[in-house]
Amino acid sequence: MSLPTLYLNSQMDRRLKRGHLWIYSNEVDTKRSPLKSLEPGTQVRVVTAKEQLIGVAMVNPANLICARLVSRTDQPMDEELLRERLRRALQLRDKAFPDPYYRLVFGDSDLLPGLVVDRFADYLVVQIATAGMEALRDLLVPVLVELLSPKGILLANDHSARELEGLERYTQVAYGEVPELVELVENQTRFRVPVHDGQKTGWFFDHRVGREQLRRWSAGARVLDVFSYIGGWGVEAATAGASQVLCVDASQKAVAQVLQNAALNGVSERVQARCGKAIEVLKALIAEGASFDVVVLDPPAFIKRRKDQKAGEAAYRHINELGLQLLSDGGLLVSASCSMHLAEDTLVDIVRASAWKAGRYARIIQRLGQGPDHPVHPAIVETNYLKAVFARVFADPR
Amino acid sequence: MSLPTLYLNSQMDRRLKRGHLWIYSNEVDTKRSPLKSLEPGTQVRVVTAKEQLIGVAMVNPANLICARLVSRTDQPMDEELLRERLRRALQLRDKAFPDPYYRLVFGDSDLLPGLVVDRFADYLVVQIATAGMEALRDLLVPVLVELLSPKGILLANDHSARELEGLERYTQVAYGEVPELVELVENQTRFRVPVHDGQKTGWFFDHRVGREQLRRWSAGARVLDVFSYIGGWGVEAATAGASQVLCVDASQKAVAQVLQNAALNGVSERVQARCGKAIEVLKALIAEGASFDVVVLDPPAFIKRRKDQKAGEAAYRHINELGLQLLSDGGLLVSASCSMHLAEDTLVDIVRASAWKAGRYARIIQRLGQGPDHPVHPAIVETNYLKAVFARVFADPR
Repeated sequence: MSLPTLYLNSQMDRRLKRGHLWIYSNEVDTKRSPLKSLEPGTQVRVVTAKEQLIGVAMVNPANLICARLVSRTDQPMDEELLRERLRRALQLRDKAFPDPYYRLVFGDSDLLPGLVVDRFADYLVVQIATAGMEALRDLLVPVLVELLSPKGILLANDHSARELEGLERYTQVAYGEVPELVELVENQTRFRVPVHDGQKTGWFFDHRVGREQLRRWSAGARVLDVFSYIGGWGVEAATAGASQVLCVDASQKAVAQVLQNAALNGVSERVQARCGKAIEVLKALIAEGASFDVVVLDPPAFIKRRKDQKAGEAAYRHINELGLQLLSDGGLLVSASCSMHLAEDTLVDIVRASAWKAGRYARIIQRLGQGPDHPVHPAIVETNYLKAVFARVFADPR
Repeated sequence: MSLPTLYLNSQMDRRLKRGHLWIYSNEVDTKRSPLKSLEPGTQVRVVTAKEQLIGVAMVNPANLICARLVSRTDQPMDEELLRERLRRALQLRDKAFPDPYYRLVFGDSDLLPGLVVDRFADYLVVQIATAGMEALRDLLVPVLVELLSPKGILLANDHSARELEGLERYTQVAYGEVPELVELVENQTRFRVPVHDGQKTGWFFDHRVGREQLRRWSAGARVLDVFSYIGGWGVEAATAGASQVLCVDASQKAVAQVLQNAALNGVSERVQARCGKAIEVLKALIAEGASFDVVVLDPPAFIKRRKDQKAGEAAYRHINELGLQLLSDGGLLVSASCSMHLAEDTLVDIVRASAWKAGRYARIIQRLGQGPDHPVHPAIVETNYLKAVFARVFADPR
């Protein structure tokens, strides 16, 4: 099989030679290789200006990131390579986790650009974000069936990243059957997860290690879980012995599912949920004189793009300042961010400044990132996005 | 009690007002408050150029860091405040750990500048690094006895930081009796620790969380522990099921203690130790064609001062390149650094580049720092010094 050739401009191979996988459209010599002539999803041989082979990439002329490397030889991404990469991904998770609940594939980090697969034991939820991976869909599903013998595979392709690639949005069962709610065990806690119409793939596996660490601080504690979704932090704190938990989420449906998940674990008596916008509920709790030993703030990404930096940082500051006011002396603040653009040091400084402003003093006792099923590609900074800063907050020292 | 006054130059209060505790000698208005006239260890009232009170500090004119804040009011560090700070510190560790083995006091982070206390159940090992804290020694020991009822307290004051403060170096039992070896349990593993003449306080509590995480990757693995000291990583890997462990250290005494600690845990059959310089042993192992599933590199600080940055980074690169050559395909590299001057991102890049150079590909699966008994003071970057990067390393992808 002979692939079309994509020529890079001179000097534009340096990032790729450090291990990066992405090619931007301004790095391509469009005179020698007109991008526009290529169908989205086509695989191409990538060569330097001096015709040295870099590897094979999947292209999409519509996207600023116009190509993503899939191999470092002239090997295209085909059924065989797909199988090998999926096997590697599975091997990594098998070693990491005793039970089959995890992110099985994390895109670039597993050398499968544009692909995410979350595994809930017998059910797989797949997200495809690039035209190249979309073109391989009919190869992918049988290979997943071969490797994992699932009962069902759901393509949860109803997300905005697809629009950058000119892909339509849809949700579709691609194999077997997938129930409305699938079950999951995380850190000894059970959840039923709405995979068809929840957030993202239905569950956020990335904070697993953070939630595991929260368990050790939960016994006997009054816990507030803000932006709780279906209760990941809050219900796990309850199963670890929290005396009372309040989950807050803006979605009525998520709040109802918090209570169902609490019931599933026999901790209904200690878990309450309140529906409302985070800022408003935090202000109401402050007005009520409420107090908690642990406050978890796990908001959606406030900084989606570079241009949101300033406003986004202000938003993080605002919720941290409010959350801190609800914390008892010596209490634990868990301040999380899934914004790739927010550096961990910046988040630490937001916690420091918010505490200081409230006349209190924060000590950082743990700094956690994404779990081992979300490996970081060390040349692609974008794959390192998650932070959870644990801080003990004391009254102002004399 | 009336304290002397230390006047800051104008604008020199900004760092302190963000929560920092240190005052550099060039920030002091020496005309209004001649530093040289103060005895090392004296407590002073610190005020801005406009005579606004900042707090009380302990001074040492001999050090570049000539003063460290101990309170934010006019309260000096006395027996009562010492007791309160120690109580806070104890409260934090009590919540964090089921057993009384931990760093009880971590200097500035516990608002006790110049003081480190490591607790081995009934025995306390104390390090004092400033003249101010040395002056409080006779208050400190009785308060520790009152709070913890130990069997013995050792002052392990034989470290180079004291020379900056013009303090003599000594080791002395200040209370009760302290045996040559004290026992410790960490992550279900027992150790006997040479507190009188080991490294630092005898044990490195700071990597506890990293060693705990290593357990999950240890079952059935062949593990190499380089710079092993008395076997922290290696013996813990063995108790977690490693099939064979090789510990490497340049000290004959440390190597002997590795074997004693292995015996203490009933894993002697699976633990070997080799005495030699890390670089030389790594090269010899490569020449022998040895292979390991896990390689731990936990060297001493290669970058002690800013001027060592370049040479230090090269030293980290060198051992990482050597360690990687011993790793099986899909194996785990644990690359640690206790150099405050080495940023985590730089260490990640060293791992990336070392793997890439060896024709291999690294994915970062965990990034860990110091445990909760080494809290980070969010305004004092120097308190955040430890990194452990866990990377899976695969053969070069096609």
